[in-house]
Amino acid sequence: MMVVNNIRKMRDISARARGEGGRVVFVPTMGSLHEGHLSLLKRGADFGGLLVMSIFVNPLQFGPGEDYLTYPRDIDRDTEMAEDAGADVVFIPNEAEIYPEGFQTSVDVPFLGRNLCGHFRPHHFGGVTTVLLKLFNIVEPHVAIFGEKDYQQIVIVRRMVSDLNLDIEIDTVPVVRERDGLAMSSRNGYLKPDERMAAGAIYKALLAGKSCFDSGSRDASIIIGEVEDVLSVQPMVSIQYVKICDLDTLEDVDTIEDGALLAVAAMVGRTRLIDNCKLYTTPEIDSCTDGSAGTERAMVW
Amino acid sequence: MMVVNNIRKMRDISARARGEGGRVVFVPTMGSLHEGHLSLLKRGADFGGLLVMSIFVNPLQFGPGEDYLTYPRDIDRDTEMAEDAGADVVFIPNEAEIYPEGFQTSVDVPFLGRNLCGHFRPHHFGGVTTVLLKLFNIVEPHVAIFGEKDYQQIVIVRRMVSDLNLDIEIDTVPVVRERDGLAMSSRNGYLKPDERMAAGAIYKALLAGKSCFDSGSRDASIIIGEVEDVLSVQPMVSIQYVKICDLDTLEDVDTIEDGALLAVAAMVGRTRLIDNCKLYTTPEIDSCTDGSAGTERAMVW
Repeated sequence: MMVVNNIRKMRDISARARGEGGRVVFVPTMGSLHEGHLSLLKRGADFGGLLVMSIFVNPLQFGPGEDYLTYPRDIDRDTEMAEDAGADVVFIPNEAEIYPEGFQTSVDVPFLGRNLCGHFRPHHFGGVTTVLLKLFNIVEPHVAIFGEKDYQQIVIVRRMVSDLNLDIEIDTVPVVRERDGLAMSSRNGYLKPDERMAAGAIYKALLAGKSCFDSGSRDASIIIGEVEDVLSVQPMVSIQYVKICDLDTLEDVDTIEDGALLAVAAMVGRTRLIDNCKLYTTPEIDSCTDGSAGTERAMVW
Repeated sequence: MMVVNNIRKMRDISARARGEGGRVVFVPTMGSLHEGHLSLLKRGADFGGLLVMSIFVNPLQFGPGEDYLTYPRDIDRDTEMAEDAGADVVFIPNEAEIYPEGFQTSVDVPFLGRNLCGHFRPHHFGGVTTVLLKLFNIVEPHVAIFGEKDYQQIVIVRRMVSDLNLDIEIDTVPVVRERDGLAMSSRNGYLKPDERMAAGAIYKALLAGKSCFDSGSRDASIIIGEVEDVLSVQPMVSIQYVKICDLDTLEDVDTIEDGALLAVAAMVGRTRLIDNCKLYTTPEIDSCTDGSAGTERAMVW
């Protein structure tokens, strides 16, 4: 496995693979790898070709007062895990080369970025799309793989790729969970033991909402109420939002028709956690109960 | 010469040329071709490879009350002229395919777009960069060629290309002028005969400013005053701005050191015209007096 720090070199490696007719498969990350990231790599390996993972803690996507400085970084452990998971290249660019003096271009997907996390993190998705477009232009992948925990990110990235005529397939992998259902996140490491216990309520709350939906409720406010009831039992969990929205437009939905996204963001102590669950009338494509599609590692129940 | 309307087909033609090891050279235009555009094609032909011109009147770069609807369109004449000038492909996409329903991604280079025309046309450059990035992603050129009449556009496009890690060389061609010095523009056709006469004052004003600079003045306000004096003689010419700014940052300059841009925007009747001239202490690279660098067609004096 190669570790590449230089943009030109990354570009050359990718161009060579493309020139030889191979596929380039890309897994962009901020490092601090966990099972969720490994499921992305595992899925990536299914495509064949050159499997590239990037590690870059992107300052643009953190707001003032957020955890850019404290975000966990452990390059040695990450590169080892990436190699074990089958990555061919780990691309770790320098911040100074990604954002040189005078850098100012921004890429924005404004309407899809308004609701859910975008409301609470107003510049977050602009930072995500800007750095991803840069990484896409450097790595030039045929396929890029994202995790469904960041569902809004997926919808936004797909829109950007389509709007900007990028010839990249966006593939996704279901949420990977801890044994108590907590969605894997690099930020889980921030949690103190009692916060970690309390954080399990987020998934339980999603399941309560899903159960309400499965029992026939289609009224978003009733389902949201069920979710909030479970969360409000935990004094350490402070709800940022519980929303039910359209899977494509991410606009709030009052009455669920074919399907919808149930999404939660909550502060547990000082740690911001998100999770989501699709509500479908056809249960076999519901990410809350199905760990299929290349995710044997997904611990979901 | 091929005329291509479909994005997929344009992408395939370009990919084939690239795959065969050829260069792809790109001249993006809004059509209504004149000698200025032809000088871009002529320069493009010097690079060898597949010479692609696009024609697309981009609604995103027009503001409310501007001339999007009346902008001159003559595809038959344009394709004929492009063929005569050596284009291999004229790409004329449909607006519905460029901006399908739900399109919302924007690309912005905010600081370079603040001054000069950006001040008077606040969404113009965002529209330019967004459509250019799309066209770059479709055509995938090695080189793209722009005219120096739109100097601010060049600086912004170069910044975007660098910031987004696009592997595209941006090449430029000096302003091409009518016999009285008026910079060629598709909008010159809007001018009534007396307005057309009056419009010649813009270039004369630039020459007066340049002459002041060449005589040793380095004080921007004095040079700007000379330019304004020439323009103010023409009652049909209403100044929007006369500015002297840094060639790279486009920020206003009080005292000229090595070089600067002298830029003018004026309304002549209801027609908005722009022009510019570089002020250099080394005269041989001054676009006001030099028609070299692949621009024998440039009528500059």
